[in-house]
Amino acid sequence: MMTVELICVGTELLLGNIVNTNAAFISEKCAMLGLSMYYQSVVGDNPGRLEKLFETAIGRSDIIILSGGLGPTQDDLTKETAAKVMGKTLLEDQKAREAVKTFMERRDRTISDNNWKQAMVPEGCKVLYNSNGTAPGIIMEEGNTRVILLPGPPNELIPMFEEQVYPYLHQLQPEIICSKMIKLCGIGESLAETKIIDLIEEQSNPTVAPYAKTGEVHLRITASAESEEKAYQLIRPMEEELRQRFGTLIYTNDSSVTLEIAVYQLLKEYHLTVTTAESCTGGLLAGRLVNVPGISEYLKEGYITYSNEAKEKLLGVPAEILKEYGAVSAQTAEAMAMGGANAAGADLCVSVTGIAGPDGGTEEKPVGLVYISCFYKGRTYTEKNQYTGSRSRIREYSVASALTLLRKVILDEMEE
Amino acid sequence: MMTVELICVGTELLLGNIVNTNAAFISEKCAMLGLSMYYQSVVGDNPGRLEKLFETAIGRSDIIILSGGLGPTQDDLTKETAAKVMGKTLLEDQKAREAVKTFMERRDRTISDNNWKQAMVPEGCKVLYNSNGTAPGIIMEEGNTRVILLPGPPNELIPMFEEQVYPYLHQLQPEIICSKMIKLCGIGESLAETKIIDLIEEQSNPTVAPYAKTGEVHLRITASAESEEKAYQLIRPMEEELRQRFGTLIYTNDSSVTLEIAVYQLLKEYHLTVTTAESCTGGLLAGRLVNVPGISEYLKEGYITYSNEAKEKLLGVPAEILKEYGAVSAQTAEAMAMGGANAAGADLCVSVTGIAGPDGGTEEKPVGLVYISCFYKGRTYTEKNQYTGSRSRIREYSVASALTLLRKVILDEMEE
Repeated sequence: MMTVELICVGTELLLGNIVNTNAAFISEKCAMLGLSMYYQSVVGDNPGRLEKLFETAIGRSDIIILSGGLGPTQDDLTKETAAKVMGKTLLEDQKAREAVKTFMERRDRTISDNNWKQAMVPEGCKVLYNSNGTAPGIIMEEGNTRVILLPGPPNELIPMFEEQVYPYLHQLQPEIICSKMIKLCGIGESLAETKIIDLIEEQSNPTVAPYAKTGEVHLRITASAESEEKAYQLIRPMEEELRQRFGTLIYTNDSSVTLEIAVYQLLKEYHLTVTTAESCTGGLLAGRLVNVPGISEYLKEGYITYSNEAKEKLLGVPAEILKEYGAVSAQTAEAMAMGGANAAGADLCVSVTGIAGPDGGTEEKPVGLVYISCFYKGRTYTEKNQYTGSRSRIREYSVASALTLLRKVILDEMEE
Repeated sequence: MMTVELICVGTELLLGNIVNTNAAFISEKCAMLGLSMYYQSVVGDNPGRLEKLFETAIGRSDIIILSGGLGPTQDDLTKETAAKVMGKTLLEDQKAREAVKTFMERRDRTISDNNWKQAMVPEGCKVLYNSNGTAPGIIMEEGNTRVILLPGPPNELIPMFEEQVYPYLHQLQPEIICSKMIKLCGIGESLAETKIIDLIEEQSNPTVAPYAKTGEVHLRITASAESEEKAYQLIRPMEEELRQRFGTLIYTNDSSVTLEIAVYQLLKEYHLTVTTAESCTGGLLAGRLVNVPGISEYLKEGYITYSNEAKEKLLGVPAEILKEYGAVSAQTAEAMAMGGANAAGADLCVSVTGIAGPDGGTEEKPVGLVYISCFYKGRTYTEKNQYTGSRSRIREYSVASALTLLRKVILDEMEE
């Protein structure tokens, strides 16, 4: 299996001025190509440190991708450093020179002397012309080592990668790698892993790896084979095994489907409308459902009822319930769910009421106590949760639990 | 100057499943502390490769921060690997064991055998207790080398870093580094940078660095001196200069104040209540205001009116307006804001209606077109925005613009 390594060059990354989205983009593409990435590094615009890191990379990886440091300024030295290590002389590329000229003229920008530096490329390299900037990308080959230089700005790097680098890497690959993501809700990471620890310990091809998400666990099955068909043949029995073990806790086997999309698909399948009645989450639950384009047919409105008054006025929660049990209680959660469905004329309503903190907790009702209720066909299904951590963590977990409960109620009811 | 190096452990990062936001967060904090970061690396859950990388890091940096790989599962081996290289035995920490127990019991989760692994810590280390998860952080010291292990999930890493690691690193610094964060809303990054390019080019002590955030620009002024007082003496004139240049675009000079907190402070100061009327943001705007503990006195309720029907029913938007101008129009945004304030009996109402995509755009009303309106004292203040990018980006920028408009209306009205 071929290995690839990524070196991102840029002081702005070391200072935390920007988030390294290029790394995630390139890594995902390489994973899709079945290239094994074992290392990513970030280094500043410092030729000495870059040279050392680059030499280490050449010694341990087949393909080295460098991004950034191809600009026209004095500190942009990635190309010079890489060429030096590879023992290549820089020569002017006529087409690259023309491209710099055209690019700058089109934008009515003055060409400075250092712009011409961008037309210099290592001898014998493959030039990747850049339609979104002045820095061309470069591919150098030497023995079994391949070095790919890319410009740093994502709007230049992404199209160059997709149009020129991806096809180049694809033709190098003899083996095909396929993977499938099995996503679970309503189970914690350690319990999920305990249930498959035997599979993880025995594994070679395919492999299974768990990923913890907020209120979810994702299991990735990966297999390599000579064809896509054969890789999926290896994946299928493992997927079946996971289905046996987790049943309806699995909400999808499609990596692009989120929990809110899974809920949306159920609403669509069974022609159900839903509304939300939120207290401590204050709109985040509806906000997550609205992540799904097309939800508007099933979620027409939602209520944020942060005060007791609003719970009475908008949802018709009886004042006596609020008085006797308090705003954070199973009774209030149920009355909110029932009242929300009624007010919106929706089939389902999911409600959330809790104490997100940091203040407002008591011994009896501590910070993190959250009631979630789902109304459907005259009945409510209510859950008590105790979360820990920050205000935002408690709210995010509450949203995940509310979506999980909504999904469960629809599934259970539809099975009956 | 002390050097710091970051190693993020996680196959998810190498596969591109997630973006490495931890690296940006930690780098920014280290820059604030005046620590020099020359290298960042990412490596998978592979003890052999991690060990080698870690040894290299120890050889070239004073402080090594490792994040990730502290979970309960079999592939989580960061702690074991780091302890091995540092020649430390792992011992059970009673308090960490208790913490795991309490954390799991509170959430009614079954404790599996592998959870106890998280209570093992290297002998003689400083344990960083984790209030948001089961993995404690760890600080090991050996000669002049300091090694800090942190859990990978940002909701655990961020509070642990801020509360425990930042103060620890701060006291290691011989020179005092002070910084002040000036936060701006309602101006783009390049325009903000153009306005201070002369300050950036001339700078030595203090320095100014711009950070682009969603709908905001943050300018950090950093100074080093022998005492805190002298550092702030250096910062003050620079802050004054920025105030001259940006005026009321500056919403705070306190790094812990977010835009929603700044809005909350204005509501509190002027005794104003607010409500929200959201279409495409679907609850995210109210959800951001509810980030602020104590907002309940000023935001009692909010409306998510995703359908035209809901806009009519809950906000009283006239059917003729929807018919004549469409749901995404200045007229509808204004009617939503007016109707929301009326329905909630609030002083102010901010509304959002737009096309978040990816579908639903036309030539006249393209994806990313968003109208925002704010009602106050019988008048509406309306803004038309055209955003680009993904559905979630468009919605997040809409929320930031709505908060910016709300702040501006309060400020403008109160000055009159």
